[in-house]
Amino acid sequence: MNYKIIKYVMGIVLCFGAIFMLLPCLVAIYYHEHAVFPFFVCAMGTGLLGLALARRKPENTTMFAKEGIVIVAVCWILLSFIGAIPYLATGSIRQPINALFESVSGFTTTGASILAEIDGLPHCILFWRCFSQWIGGMGVLVFIMAVLPNLGASNLYLMRAESSGPSVRKFLPKMQSMAFLLYAIYIALTILEFVLLVIAGMPVFDALCDSLSTAGTGGFAVRTDSIASYSRAVKLIIAIFMLLFGVNFQFYFLLLMKHIKEAFRMEEVRWYVVIYTTAVCLIAINLTFSVGQMTTGEIQGNFEDAIFQVATVMTSSGFATVDYARWPEFSQTLMLIVMCVGACSGSTACGIKISRVLLYVKAMGKELEFQLHPRSVRKIKMDDKTVDHETLRSTKAFLLAYIFIIVLATLIISIDQFDFRTNFTASIAMLNNIGPGLGNVGPTCCYESFSPLSKFVMMFEMLAGRLEIVPMLVLLTPGTWKKQ
Amino acid sequence: MNYKIIKYVMGIVLCFGAIFMLLPCLVAIYYHEHAVFPFFVCAMGTGLLGLALARRKPENTTMFAKEGIVIVAVCWILLSFIGAIPYLATGSIRQPINALFESVSGFTTTGASILAEIDGLPHCILFWRCFSQWIGGMGVLVFIMAVLPNLGASNLYLMRAESSGPSVRKFLPKMQSMAFLLYAIYIALTILEFVLLVIAGMPVFDALCDSLSTAGTGGFAVRTDSIASYSRAVKLIIAIFMLLFGVNFQFYFLLLMKHIKEAFRMEEVRWYVVIYTTAVCLIAINLTFSVGQMTTGEIQGNFEDAIFQVATVMTSSGFATVDYARWPEFSQTLMLIVMCVGACSGSTACGIKISRVLLYVKAMGKELEFQLHPRSVRKIKMDDKTVDHETLRSTKAFLLAYIFIIVLATLIISIDQFDFRTNFTASIAMLNNIGPGLGNVGPTCCYESFSPLSKFVMMFEMLAGRLEIVPMLVLLTPGTWKKQ
Repeated sequence: MNYKIIKYVMGIVLCFGAIFMLLPCLVAIYYHEHAVFPFFVCAMGTGLLGLALARRKPENTTMFAKEGIVIVAVCWILLSFIGAIPYLATGSIRQPINALFESVSGFTTTGASILAEIDGLPHCILFWRCFSQWIGGMGVLVFIMAVLPNLGASNLYLMRAESSGPSVRKFLPKMQSMAFLLYAIYIALTILEFVLLVIAGMPVFDALCDSLSTAGTGGFAVRTDSIASYSRAVKLIIAIFMLLFGVNFQFYFLLLMKHIKEAFRMEEVRWYVVIYTTAVCLIAINLTFSVGQMTTGEIQGNFEDAIFQVATVMTSSGFATVDYARWPEFSQTLMLIVMCVGACSGSTACGIKISRVLLYVKAMGKELEFQLHPRSVRKIKMDDKTVDHETLRSTKAFLLAYIFIIVLATLIISIDQFDFRTNFTASIAMLNNIGPGLGNVGPTCCYESFSPLSKFVMMFEMLAGRLEIVPMLVLLTPGTWKKQ
Repeated sequence: MNYKIIKYVMGIVLCFGAIFMLLPCLVAIYYHEHAVFPFFVCAMGTGLLGLALARRKPENTTMFAKEGIVIVAVCWILLSFIGAIPYLATGSIRQPINALFESVSGFTTTGASILAEIDGLPHCILFWRCFSQWIGGMGVLVFIMAVLPNLGASNLYLMRAESSGPSVRKFLPKMQSMAFLLYAIYIALTILEFVLLVIAGMPVFDALCDSLSTAGTGGFAVRTDSIASYSRAVKLIIAIFMLLFGVNFQFYFLLLMKHIKEAFRMEEVRWYVVIYTTAVCLIAINLTFSVGQMTTGEIQGNFEDAIFQVATVMTSSGFATVDYARWPEFSQTLMLIVMCVGACSGSTACGIKISRVLLYVKAMGKELEFQLHPRSVRKIKMDDKTVDHETLRSTKAFLLAYIFIIVLATLIISIDQFDFRTNFTASIAMLNNIGPGLGNVGPTCCYESFSPLSKFVMMFEMLAGRLEIVPMLVLLTPGTWKKQ
């Protein structure tokens, strides 16, 4: 293991962390908040530590798969610790573990909060929460790759470990231009949402923060009631942008390259639309039929609720407009399923991802075919291309690990004696980076009441969910740390 | 598709069904019950229908994988229908769908009942319930193969589709001798249990019925309180035999062949012991610590409860001595996990099976190894033998289908508006052929209150669980019925 390159990249991440922290400082200055001083000290400390670590570029910048994976895991944990300090320093959160939980929840774009009340928090902290989700959405290492010329040797490993979905296709020959393009689309969409929200009459600060957390499909808002108290236009805009950030970014890339036909032929994007529409219709119908007679206005309201809420859990955002934990059982179960399915790979959303689910369905079909005709040789295809054996194996291994983590986490969380629905859906909401679950962790509740052990398990789940499990498991594998 | 051979085998199964029904007739005669007449009529009708179908042996007895799978699925459904008639004919159950549910629950060795009260039922019906579980435990087609000389061409397909676990190894060159040996071990263990139970002071009829349902790891008992009111010795004997019937029968075969060392080296059996012991200890400790101070007697009671209840859910039996739905959350969650893991493949128990779980863990390990060292070539081994690619693929496909069915079934069952814990655990208890779940379907409750739609879904799950999914899915695949 090349420890020197890991140390070096950690230093660079810290330097960028310091720069990120300067933005909330500006917010604090604008609003004349006392929090500017502790925030600035945090930024300086982080920057100095970063410079110390990255002082000397190692001579040997060779990076293999192992180093790439370890760097991503270690940097995300580091960033979470750094991100927790402002919460403590400004006195917004008193318990260190709660601050760490909030920070992990931010960077992993989960949006689960230990704060029951956020209306009284300083603006800079509100901004920091949402901004951390924006950074986490596209990935901090991808960001660094976009702005820095070649960090080390092959950055494909970093990109792979930090991006979501079964495979990162190199659609541009140079990694840097690819990272740059991804961030360009990301920033452009964020700005567009911000402008539209301001036009729709949202306060500028709220629009800024909510655009940032929508982009990361995070779900942190600036009001305690999430976004329930804004106008219908605002809710609609946020719903649309959540869905847009849940689309595979390759789709936008194809649009930019004017491959319109190819873009709209992407299987994953098509199924994304189909699954979303089906879920919305089923839930709206279930809501309508669960309470006898309804006026047209109420039925329309049901559809609006379904449109927003399905978008928010499918993209793993977790904004709330209504308390879906009070919906009929069928709708709640469907929401839980949609949570797990998630949106497209290569987006900022989390969950299993539609492309994986498609591969699972195809793998089952192939197996049935094989059972009926043992001599059949059928290849699994995606977008008319044969899916190679390794991708298939990794995709299946992902599900195995996914289930093991959910089961084990539910078991450990159950020591806290909450009911099964709470434990199980909390575990699902954490690993899928949604935020709210059902029961005691529904949209109107917060995560403060869990024990420290449960919170540690949840933090592990959030990081595992954001980094698609492998990097976190690699950290726990003894073989990783063996000298060679 | 060779429809003629399917029809022929269906006829034979019906004839055997008729013979099976004569046994409860004898019970009815012994107890001077009126039910003897309707039972006898059912047996005659079934026999005549069977003879009509199996009148002529088809000239072409070629049977490929497809026919084998279809025969198993169709015969099990047929047997369930036949088995439901006595319940209706004797007036023990009035609703046809409930009778069918009880019959499916019997043959699939689930043990979930729609009867809240069974104390007043005639002896012949009580016997029929338990006897159906005994037949279902080892499999009716395996039975027919054991007593009839070569049915058609290759019976390996039948055996594969009806037996449990990732692969049926041919440990004897002739299928018939293998089926015969399996049944010999099965009968010997059943008789041994019966004798021990009688010695322990259980009434002879109760001992007979409970031995039959223990052998099938079914869980139907002859008292409303299951076996809670028997002595400790009886409970202990039943617990031990449940565990014994959950062992891979290959273990007994190796013992019979005097390959003692090889038998005790079987990875699956070892892990069976480890998982069982761990679960018992964790639950007993959890039970002890959940209520302040406890006497030594109470702690011993906790261990006894844990020993029995873990055995009953792990082997998918579902006998009850205590209501584990009132245990602390941690224990309940652990019970749910143990339910899903199940016991050994090649036993009468259901669930995912330990050998599959082992393969999943090994596959994850291999994937992590591959992520760290992309050029590593490691084979997955089991009992020191390399597991071939096809077995691995089928094992993974099994989990995919398993999860899809549980998720979909939970969603449909949720229309009935029971709580999430009830729906989800009912779905798990059905697919794993356990019987009781948690919540409204806990050990003290029954399944009567569900809607017909939910009951149909549950029957599908029970059959899918017993036949390890593939045969039931094949029935739903349009390609199966295409003319070739």
